[in-house]
Amino acid sequence: MDTLSVELGERGYPIHIGRGLLRQPELLGERATGRRVVVVSNETVAPLYLQTLQDTLSAAGAGSVDALVLPDGERYKTLETLERIYTGLLQRRLDRGDLLVALGGGVIGDLTGFAAATYQRGIDFIQVPTTLLAQVDSSVGGKTGVNHPLGKNMIGAFHQPRMVLVDTDTLNTLPDRELSAGLAEVIKYGLIDDAEFFAWLEAHLPALRAREPEALAHAIRRSCADKAHVVAQDERESGRRALLNLGHTFGHAIETGMGYGQWLHGEAVAAGTVMAADLSLRLGWLEAGEQERIVRLLQAAGLPVEPPPGLGPERFREIMAVDKKVQRGRLRLVLLQGIGRAVVTAEFDPKALDETLDALTRP
Amino acid sequence: MDTLSVELGERGYPIHIGRGLLRQPELLGERATGRRVVVVSNETVAPLYLQTLQDTLSAAGAGSVDALVLPDGERYKTLETLERIYTGLLQRRLDRGDLLVALGGGVIGDLTGFAAATYQRGIDFIQVPTTLLAQVDSSVGGKTGVNHPLGKNMIGAFHQPRMVLVDTDTLNTLPDRELSAGLAEVIKYGLIDDAEFFAWLEAHLPALRAREPEALAHAIRRSCADKAHVVAQDERESGRRALLNLGHTFGHAIETGMGYGQWLHGEAVAAGTVMAADLSLRLGWLEAGEQERIVRLLQAAGLPVEPPPGLGPERFREIMAVDKKVQRGRLRLVLLQGIGRAVVTAEFDPKALDETLDALTRP
Repeated sequence: MDTLSVELGERGYPIHIGRGLLRQPELLGERATGRRVVVVSNETVAPLYLQTLQDTLSAAGAGSVDALVLPDGERYKTLETLERIYTGLLQRRLDRGDLLVALGGGVIGDLTGFAAATYQRGIDFIQVPTTLLAQVDSSVGGKTGVNHPLGKNMIGAFHQPRMVLVDTDTLNTLPDRELSAGLAEVIKYGLIDDAEFFAWLEAHLPALRAREPEALAHAIRRSCADKAHVVAQDERESGRRALLNLGHTFGHAIETGMGYGQWLHGEAVAAGTVMAADLSLRLGWLEAGEQERIVRLLQAAGLPVEPPPGLGPERFREIMAVDKKVQRGRLRLVLLQGIGRAVVTAEFDPKALDETLDALTRP
Repeated sequence: MDTLSVELGERGYPIHIGRGLLRQPELLGERATGRRVVVVSNETVAPLYLQTLQDTLSAAGAGSVDALVLPDGERYKTLETLERIYTGLLQRRLDRGDLLVALGGGVIGDLTGFAAATYQRGIDFIQVPTTLLAQVDSSVGGKTGVNHPLGKNMIGAFHQPRMVLVDTDTLNTLPDRELSAGLAEVIKYGLIDDAEFFAWLEAHLPALRAREPEALAHAIRRSCADKAHVVAQDERESGRRALLNLGHTFGHAIETGMGYGQWLHGEAVAAGTVMAADLSLRLGWLEAGEQERIVRLLQAAGLPVEPPPGLGPERFREIMAVDKKVQRGRLRLVLLQGIGRAVVTAEFDPKALDETLDALTRP
């Protein structure tokens, strides 16, 4: 087992990464002993891991262990589902001293985290991510929330978990498509400021897609370490943390425009990353050879490298106008000045953005 | 004009109290200049003050000024109304650098504050309270949220406003019943730790109910100063701040049990305060003469001093079991060891609570 830590003073917490951690009561015991615990999961993950986790929590000395099982999918990351969670917690009379545990992918983590942020104005929660995407990205850093029909992740809060428990064995049951989606976020860390990791990924993508445990463990550790470092520097995204949104402004527009759940988040981020790279190339910030390496690596990961048909330039502009990185009406984007050199900037020629949208999108 | 301040470091803010402040662009200008502003109000308050406030914000140099007008009443303090606010903000493409202003009573302040806490994970907001209750209590301290059918204020967040602007002229249009409801919270401050203020209130209640400006201004200043002091010591209610919930556990049970909006919040708090005093008397912590002074003062303020019929002891116990002050399954209450000496404690004889419920409630 490896343990990383997110250094945020009294809000800091450990990220435990290893095989079989779901069965180790001593890790969860630190937070669960003597408290009532409600595990929030979904209909896909619950049949696989819920009983194991509940047994471990009981063995860890939890006062009681209960579960809420939600439908699976991004389309359920809504205020309506959130209300269902609140009702379940109130019916079980959960109080401020109790604990929530999110068992599932990014949707379950975001929903559970936001419920924890706002139930009785805030209670503790633990992330137990079971998808690669959640393990390398969404479970770390305290971003929680739900979607609105007019924009993805538009409603939410910063609320840090008390622990992240990554049991890499859970990846054994992950569908290939979800594994690929997670790789989009892994590749992102390489692009932002870790060119060495990007090169490692170019060499090890076949091993990752073949789920070789050593390769996966390395990719997860490195991604979590990169993320923990950025979050510690800039918890509430007033600066550097915005870099982690590489590919996400375009990607969110794809998810919002197509209707949540048509593409996986990681798939939309992959196409969005290609769009950001294309724009960077047009601005003369990125070399053609670098742009090609990016497209090649995403393709090798089994990811889409262009946006879906049906979303034209106008629709993209309309949706991106309500992105959270818009400041005082001005769109900021994460762009690339090279592999491993991302920047957040509003200082780009809007004509180049128009060209990217005209070239890559299809109405 | 008086200016108090809530000392919370970078989250600190001023409370401006005085006549005609709604018409003074220099106060709002500090936060509104150059930003898009959305004022959230209700159908009762908007016809009276919205145009004035919008003109002042424009004169203060706001980039744009827009308004969302909601239905009036506690029954609308829900997730559904919140969703309506989010939709309005997204349609207007408000971004993280923009500003919300709450113009109204406690319901509008709580709703707007929670929308500000969670829209794009948090934007700035200003409180412009127009009821006595909101001016002396709910607009200060950053508690925001909505009700759930199973419990009052069960969903929410701590999110401090950037400014509280109390224009005491707005009390001229306040119905008598609402003025009385506000006095319940004013009296609360005297009971908690300000026996001198309690005695002043006994002498000046007729002046307050006659809306003499000097008396009202003094009561508002003293209440805000008491509250600002407690909030600065304990922003997130890990200790002393819980004292401010005197009368509220019983009061919330009345509001939840009757259905939100039957009684005003201040009315429920008044009856709840009598219940807390009765229990304190039964425990031998309060003298009979003090209990009588409390009942007399609340009656003089035009407030109910017993809970409504239709809510028996069993229903009270059931609702109070999900109170936010329950810790690890144990109910804590704010009780009195004298006028001006409140304590938060779970250390009381539960039989005395049963006696209070049996004696004062009616199924």
